[in-house]
Amino acid sequence: MAELQKEKFPEIQGGGSLMIAWQVKGKQVLVIGGGEVAAGRIVHLLNADAVVTVICPSTGLNPEVSYRIAQKQVMHINRTFLPSDLGDREWSMVLVAIDDPAASTQIWKLCKQKRIVANIADVPPECDFYFGSVHRDGPLQIMVSTNGKGPRLASMIRRFIAKKLPSNAGRAIESIGELRVKLRQVAPRPEEGPKRMSWMKDVSDEYSWEEMCEMTEEDMTNLLKFYGPNKVPSFDELRGMRASAAEAAKADVFDGSFGFSVGA
Amino acid sequence: MAELQKEKFPEIQGGGSLMIAWQVKGKQVLVIGGGEVAAGRIVHLLNADAVVTVICPSTGLNPEVSYRIAQKQVMHINRTFLPSDLGDREWSMVLVAIDDPAASTQIWKLCKQKRIVANIADVPPECDFYFGSVHRDGPLQIMVSTNGKGPRLASMIRRFIAKKLPSNAGRAIESIGELRVKLRQVAPRPEEGPKRMSWMKDVSDEYSWEEMCEMTEEDMTNLLKFYGPNKVPSFDELRGMRASAAEAAKADVFDGSFGFSVGA
Repeated sequence: MAELQKEKFPEIQGGGSLMIAWQVKGKQVLVIGGGEVAAGRIVHLLNADAVVTVICPSTGLNPEVSYRIAQKQVMHINRTFLPSDLGDREWSMVLVAIDDPAASTQIWKLCKQKRIVANIADVPPECDFYFGSVHRDGPLQIMVSTNGKGPRLASMIRRFIAKKLPSNAGRAIESIGELRVKLRQVAPRPEEGPKRMSWMKDVSDEYSWEEMCEMTEEDMTNLLKFYGPNKVPSFDELRGMRASAAEAAKADVFDGSFGFSVGA
Repeated sequence: MAELQKEKFPEIQGGGSLMIAWQVKGKQVLVIGGGEVAAGRIVHLLNADAVVTVICPSTGLNPEVSYRIAQKQVMHINRTFLPSDLGDREWSMVLVAIDDPAASTQIWKLCKQKRIVANIADVPPECDFYFGSVHRDGPLQIMVSTNGKGPRLASMIRRFIAKKLPSNAGRAIESIGELRVKLRQVAPRPEEGPKRMSWMKDVSDEYSWEEMCEMTEEDMTNLLKFYGPNKVPSFDELRGMRASAAEAAKADVFDGSFGFSVGA
């Protein structure tokens, strides 16, 4: 019985991290330090719509951080950190990237007292979380972590993955999102929920990820016509419905049927 | 000038999440609920070495959660959640997966009062973070998030990536980690730090990710011999140094040189 269950349920493989997509939209985040590491953190934060304040003497700012401040993408406090800064605002997160281990540790301890989520760059024991290497394409985000075995490797793997992904992966995800929204317009009644969900599941099951990336706006519109009869056409059928395919077919011998009749 | 800088620094692309690798090793995490969603959360938590407590009446446990409890992989409190549970221990995180929106919202509010990081399944506004679809191979973790555009798509993309990755990717990352450790044994002095770091960087730059995945234990040992003279051989040179290659060469016409002489 135990053997049977072992096969049935995922084996636990410890030693990893809890990989999560943190939500900082509109939330106050404090970045202490203004060097190269801080610059990288700020990009991650702004890409996630955080409200960022940087504490660092102007003399210590790197060009990128200066640029973000000049562009008003982040707020700036032109001095070194003071413990009172932590009580200043409802910080949802504090990121420290300064070359002062003693000050860093002090900030970490203050954050933990106040139960503020924090990351002290380059000091793993003083981190609630680590950063990874992130590929971004519209709504798609892919984070690679080697769990401390090598940040350069993580970037290599990220680039490897980016190269393998279909070039319009982000766009394809948007399209599926739009398909779901349009489906709700076509079939808005709450009692249709289960049918909508099961049809979307069938759609996901029918096409490969590569096929989804090849779908055009026109394909999506045509696909929606199959919701009524609760069917999902093959990708070839869907392509056959394109206006361009019909044009080509007119010039060719073509009997006008796609092997499936679409309802209104 | 502004134009020039715009090209120089990464463009901000809002609407994403802050992708992070949360550290829960040895930390107390509370899972409220014992259904299918809870089962998935528990796997994520145990893979990250968290100390997990599940609160759920025994009658509401799904087979996988029951199995984890029976195996003592998680602790179990056999009843529904009480607000006093939150004060019970130093919870570093609370995950809620119950079919009771009112109770869920109450737990979310309590967590926020106590500044405990929390995730209420299926209620995006009541989440400090979302989960993604995670590929795991030893020290390598890759999380795919579609930022809410479709969890099924995230799994598809995860499977797509898993298929494209070299089969021994996780092992390769371990090897690089071991190379770094062995390097410290070969060159332990602190003043060698910069040379060690720059040599490791050269190693990362010399080989493609695919080549690193093809490297054997023997290759790693041979590679280490190049640290003294501060060189990095090409992958072909390294392969040429394999005992099997030398054997093959002996049987062949071969002048014994690899175009590079390795120091002691």
